[in-house]
Amino acid sequence: MDKEREQLWVRKDHPPSLFRRFQFDNYNNLRVFLDRLADLSEETEYYPDISFGSDYANITVYASNDKELSEEEKTFAQRVDELIDPT
Amino acid sequence: MDKEREQLWVRKDHPPSLFRRFQFDNYNNLRVFLDRLADLSEETEYYPDISFGSDYANITVYASNDKELSEEEKTFAQRVDELIDPT
Repeated sequence: MDKEREQLWVRKDHPPSLFRRFQFDNYNNLRVFLDRLADLSEETEYYPDISFGSDYANITVYASNDKELSEEEKTFAQRVDELIDPT
Repeated sequence: MDKEREQLWVRKDHPPSLFRRFQFDNYNNLRVFLDRLADLSEETEYYPDISFGSDYANITVYASNDKELSEEEKTFAQRVDELIDPT
């Protein structure tokens, strides 16, 4: 993950995880994002914690070993960023 | 909402809300549920708080007036129950 991207995610230590809030203009854009994210999870077999309301989604990528985020988990976060349409 | 259904939801008072956890056998069944729930939200223009992982979804229906759940909000919770395939 390059530095600029990484700053979009908040790194937390207890437990080790990456967190990012995504904001959307409308519910339809949020649905498109969640659908893409579900496809990505099925492809990678990684399932982050997701919470959402009408116009936002909070994503948390936990370290599955409870100690340190793996390269795969960091790459997953980077790929989530790429699901957003460029604005 | 009849009594039996209401017991599936946990009523909380601070703030007034209904909470229910739904468990799924697999991610595909969860996706079907979330899709139906999104359709219901678009129909009713009510957007609950939803959080989910690979095999569960937690739904919270808040009182939009911050004081008391309306009949519409209780009915929304009942309709969420009906999105689950009978087992």
